[in-house]
Amino acid sequence: MRCLSCREEYEYEEANAGTCKECYEEASETEEELKREIDDLKSKLKFLTTRSPVDPHNPNNSSSSLFTDVLLVASDEDDCGDGAPSVPAHKAVLVSRSPVFRAMLKNEMEESRSGTIRISDVSYEVLCSFVHYLYTAEVTLDEQMACELLALAEKYQVKHLKAYCEKFMKSKVDVENALITFAFASQHNAEHLLEASLLVVTDNMDKLTKQDVYKELIDKDPRLIVGIYEAYLAKKDNTASSCSLPQNPS
Amino acid sequence: MRCLSCREEYEYEEANAGTCKECYEEASETEEELKREIDDLKSKLKFLTTRSPVDPHNPNNSSSSLFTDVLLVASDEDDCGDGAPSVPAHKAVLVSRSPVFRAMLKNEMEESRSGTIRISDVSYEVLCSFVHYLYTAEVTLDEQMACELLALAEKYQVKHLKAYCEKFMKSKVDVENALITFAFASQHNAEHLLEASLLVVTDNMDKLTKQDVYKELIDKDPRLIVGIYEAYLAKKDNTASSCSLPQNPS
Repeated sequence: MRCLSCREEYEYEEANAGTCKECYEEASETEEELKREIDDLKSKLKFLTTRSPVDPHNPNNSSSSLFTDVLLVASDEDDCGDGAPSVPAHKAVLVSRSPVFRAMLKNEMEESRSGTIRISDVSYEVLCSFVHYLYTAEVTLDEQMACELLALAEKYQVKHLKAYCEKFMKSKVDVENALITFAFASQHNAEHLLEASLLVVTDNMDKLTKQDVYKELIDKDPRLIVGIYEAYLAKKDNTASSCSLPQNPS
Repeated sequence: MRCLSCREEYEYEEANAGTCKECYEEASETEEELKREIDDLKSKLKFLTTRSPVDPHNPNNSSSSLFTDVLLVASDEDDCGDGAPSVPAHKAVLVSRSPVFRAMLKNEMEESRSGTIRISDVSYEVLCSFVHYLYTAEVTLDEQMACELLALAEKYQVKHLKAYCEKFMKSKVDVENALITFAFASQHNAEHLLEASLLVVTDNMDKLTKQDVYKELIDKDPRLIVGIYEAYLAKKDNTASSCSLPQNPS
């Protein structure tokens, strides 16, 4: 039997048969169609992307931001913001990406009148990446950046960015960081990350209860630890009952 | 032999074999990956689409256009534009979609100072669809709308819209409209449409030279007709030489 796809391997045994000719041809057509759809979407995306007013790889480079009508200012909690570095942006873009900006700018609030929005507890670098994402849906993440952007995305309800950071952080969960990640996810309502880190935590209870962060959490947020024990017990019960089922069929 | 794809047809003959199992599984994985990529792109697209300031299906509906800073006015040639219907828009969006708007608004030209851009020879309905496309890359076309938008897209160098209209018009080329489409494509530098309509024209020379539009074109733009005859002869020569090749191998 000859495979129409990998022609170099001329013959295969009946046991290794995949599809009939018709299905193979249909699958090839489907693949071509999907690729065309991807090209169309990419071209649409390129067309609809409004030029970002900031270059996150070179934040100090004064980029050519045309017709901006609002300033975002990175300010520390104690800082009144004078002289703090700012990023220009377009109100129309901000309100279309974030319901929080929308409420802020649409109603006659302080931010709308002054044309300045203070973003507290954030570095200038993170603010640049945040604004750049609002224009391009693109960002280069590392662990630190993902944490800070997830917190910002939650605060300003930018769901697309939050999901992106959560996905990245989920891929980085391990025994070492599971507990701290679980606490972080709980603080910022990151459900998917919470679930993923809780799984690692409950799989490694013996190790994790010896970590310093465990002791710190007991002091800081004991309810979180209670939640972990509840999940641990529920999991143990589940495993026990699913293990016992084949042995004791009713 | 059993097809892994259309399981209901359990058996097929060796002659109808498509792929081996490995290739089938690989192809299924590829399809899943492509579908995931499409979902990601669609979600990105949704996130990055700025709300259109106009509803093309209901142009008279005053939509909630926030923070617009420029007016586009549909004006006839003789009309000075006073009282003509206008569409609000954002300069930042216009300059990012069209190099012509960019030059107009970036430099201190009349349009930039007045905050009003006159779009001549266009109906209010077409202008609405044009602006809506600049925000969403979406439009419902019929033949008339495709013609008018293609002309606008060429004038303001909105390549994405021009390509979309050309594709639509290409699909509508037939013997009846080939000649007039060819003239239209030539007028608006629509290369793909020009090629497609020329093909139909040169395939139907005997019919088309009898049409009224042929006689009109001889008066209005004789060079266009010369181009058609040149293409016709070149095609005839090509066909003749490719036909004669198998008969007279050297």
